[in-house]
Amino acid sequence: MKPVLDETHDSKVQSWVESANLAGSDFPIQNLPFGVFRRCKAGAEARVGVAIGDRILDLAGAQSDGLLATDDESVRLAANACASDSLNPLMAIGASPRRALRRRLHAILRQDAPASDRQAASRHLVAQADADMLLPAAVGDYTDFYASIFHATNVGKLFRPDNPLLPNYKYIPIGYHGRASSLVPTGTPVRRPSGQTRDGGADPNKDPKFGPTRALDYEVELGFFVGAGNSLGETIPIGEAEEHIFGICLVNDWSARDIQAWEYQPLGPFLAKSFATSLSPWVVTMEALAPFRAPAFARGEGDPAPLPYLFAQSDREQGGLDLWLEVSLLSVRMQEAGMAPAVFGRSNFRDMYWTMAQMLTHHASNGCNLRAGDLLASGTVSGADKTARGCLLELTSRGKEPVTLPTGEQRKFLEDGDQVILRGFCERAGFRRIGLGSCRGAILPASAI
Amino acid sequence: MKPVLDETHDSKVQSWVESANLAGSDFPIQNLPFGVFRRCKAGAEARVGVAIGDRILDLAGAQSDGLLATDDESVRLAANACASDSLNPLMAIGASPRRALRRRLHAILRQDAPASDRQAASRHLVAQADADMLLPAAVGDYTDFYASIFHATNVGKLFRPDNPLLPNYKYIPIGYHGRASSLVPTGTPVRRPSGQTRDGGADPNKDPKFGPTRALDYEVELGFFVGAGNSLGETIPIGEAEEHIFGICLVNDWSARDIQAWEYQPLGPFLAKSFATSLSPWVVTMEALAPFRAPAFARGEGDPAPLPYLFAQSDREQGGLDLWLEVSLLSVRMQEAGMAPAVFGRSNFRDMYWTMAQMLTHHASNGCNLRAGDLLASGTVSGADKTARGCLLELTSRGKEPVTLPTGEQRKFLEDGDQVILRGFCERAGFRRIGLGSCRGAILPASAI
Repeated sequence: MKPVLDETHDSKVQSWVESANLAGSDFPIQNLPFGVFRRCKAGAEARVGVAIGDRILDLAGAQSDGLLATDDESVRLAANACASDSLNPLMAIGASPRRALRRRLHAILRQDAPASDRQAASRHLVAQADADMLLPAAVGDYTDFYASIFHATNVGKLFRPDNPLLPNYKYIPIGYHGRASSLVPTGTPVRRPSGQTRDGGADPNKDPKFGPTRALDYEVELGFFVGAGNSLGETIPIGEAEEHIFGICLVNDWSARDIQAWEYQPLGPFLAKSFATSLSPWVVTMEALAPFRAPAFARGEGDPAPLPYLFAQSDREQGGLDLWLEVSLLSVRMQEAGMAPAVFGRSNFRDMYWTMAQMLTHHASNGCNLRAGDLLASGTVSGADKTARGCLLELTSRGKEPVTLPTGEQRKFLEDGDQVILRGFCERAGFRRIGLGSCRGAILPASAI
Repeated sequence: MKPVLDETHDSKVQSWVESANLAGSDFPIQNLPFGVFRRCKAGAEARVGVAIGDRILDLAGAQSDGLLATDDESVRLAANACASDSLNPLMAIGASPRRALRRRLHAILRQDAPASDRQAASRHLVAQADADMLLPAAVGDYTDFYASIFHATNVGKLFRPDNPLLPNYKYIPIGYHGRASSLVPTGTPVRRPSGQTRDGGADPNKDPKFGPTRALDYEVELGFFVGAGNSLGETIPIGEAEEHIFGICLVNDWSARDIQAWEYQPLGPFLAKSFATSLSPWVVTMEALAPFRAPAFARGEGDPAPLPYLFAQSDREQGGLDLWLEVSLLSVRMQEAGMAPAVFGRSNFRDMYWTMAQMLTHHASNGCNLRAGDLLASGTVSGADKTARGCLLELTSRGKEPVTLPTGEQRKFLEDGDQVILRGFCERAGFRRIGLGSCRGAILPASAI
């Protein structure tokens, strides 16, 4: 499927919600991401909404008011699916009704919308400042990939200097099952985990210890949600993969590197990751991303072609995504001094070795059933440059080259009180900037053991 | 917590449900496992039941008839939790109400129960032959451990001859996140998965291929369900761990060894496992297992003691479980010839290096939240003897030493049409045998690619 551009991408269209028209807004009328919010008042219930500027349009409210009632059966189907406390029903009905709902929302929110629509919609606008954002979906299964060859090579050098990039890397979109229960929405504080570690130093026969991690890290990732799923035993051809993707969000895959190093052989990361994984709350749909699609990563001369089940011409030409990811850090001292967060890395999703479609198709290639609301994440998004490293492990070479903050403080890994902020956005001449919002988390001290 | 023996374990008590009193029954009145069933008729709904002999007592029915109404608040709480289409609510309320419900069910079903109870209960008995068994719980997260040192050593020798047992094994109950979506109840056919494989033979630079696995295997495991969970950021002390376990079932962790060998580095097994994992439908509670508890595995002279967070005296003395697991195979030709399944392995859960409590406590030791209905599995249960190997990979030394069936057929790995049957049971002089029922699955040919 080639991404389709239509009037919802027209950069000249503005919204009557003025804040959506500001140049820096993540949520212009061309975006219209979905999320789940709860008004900040006692007894408020979780509702599905769409972000527009600094407001949220309450979709269940709009629907109950007849605002989404049209002659279009697809719009009705999608609107009814929004009467839920999660995006799962909307995800489950697939791409076509979602696109119809997008067009209807665009028509309601544009500056020249009929006065009646505008008045009705106004009654269901909530200020984002007056709402708490929840997880967008009940995630049945969370899968984390390892799709950046720059990340895989950098990390491989640290853990296996003799063997940085394993022989399977260029054939398989490597991934593993993550923990769904510990997915948390942006803003949730992250407790420093304790675990077993063993110094890899002088004496390899030294007993391991149990205690708070001393190598707490972030990982900048892009997540994508499954829309319509597949049945157990069925596969998803690569040419159809994008029809099964609902949209994207930011993922911070917090990692305890010392716990990881000791536990990960032979079955992979486990407790080093399962203490918390933070998500941004707004899911930007594949429709909104259409103008920013890009060719898949250009494999090197000596690289193998993807096996046939992972190759489609459309995916090679448009399976990539020109999306910037940025990670910044704010220490307690920086905050006290009124400083802005310090940018630690800026990478682009174009540089991923595997596309979202390839990850999804590979995941289902053994007949594994993907369900609406399942979350797939890309793995750390790093690029070729040192400025484009998506985790501290890479940036500080496992702590050997600390980063200096504007306060003069140094960081090998995260300290208690540090706040980590992820942002993501697409920019292209002739189009409105599309943002993912932010994904934030601050580190709490470890519990007493 | 030391396992408590009470009148519900008294081997002299019989049931007025005659089939429960037969010597070979898995479900005497001393067992009373919980499950979710649906009558074999159109429109029937999923209901919680308890197995007694060859019958099921429909608990929602019994409750609506007032049969479970007593002065005991705990019984009422548990009975209300059974009005569900899964065991999750009953799991969530924790051990104490579950124990009260067990005592009440025992009183209703024993031979000398009041006639009124007996008459009322009779109206809610369903023949197991007239019901389909479903998954007992909606599993939020499924975690698979690797707790048999015999399995880990045997497999390690095949994959890493120079380094069979990794240095972390005796310190960490190694585990990884499994796939929850592809958990299926007993009887569900298992489609042979396709995937990437590369012959490890002559030319390691040979390109991998995509096609049906040629090394399909079973793994005999014990699963245990989380009862009351813990909040994110909290841990579960080892002395309290068993209070968080609801009960056990059989797990067949189907595995494609050739896919596994090529994909598993560095993040662990993924598609080699996620195509299907079969569960037995009856969850035998920790209460029913009380007479069969055993000391934890006796570590060797040179082995390290468990780190303090994984050690409790009660766990060392009673954390093990004397439970036999048996796997047998029935080929199409054997079936046609009217032969009985051939037993391929018989192992005992006593031989696990780590106890259930240690696995659970380790899992939550980083603050990972476990939720009611989460499934933890032990990993393949193997013993020291060749007769006690829990998978074909071990039994045939990765296909080098095929097994001969009574028909003369040979098996390196599973063939299409093979049916694999797991059974589990506890036996001890002076007590009634407690069974887990069976977990069955037959192999369907791969789909066309």
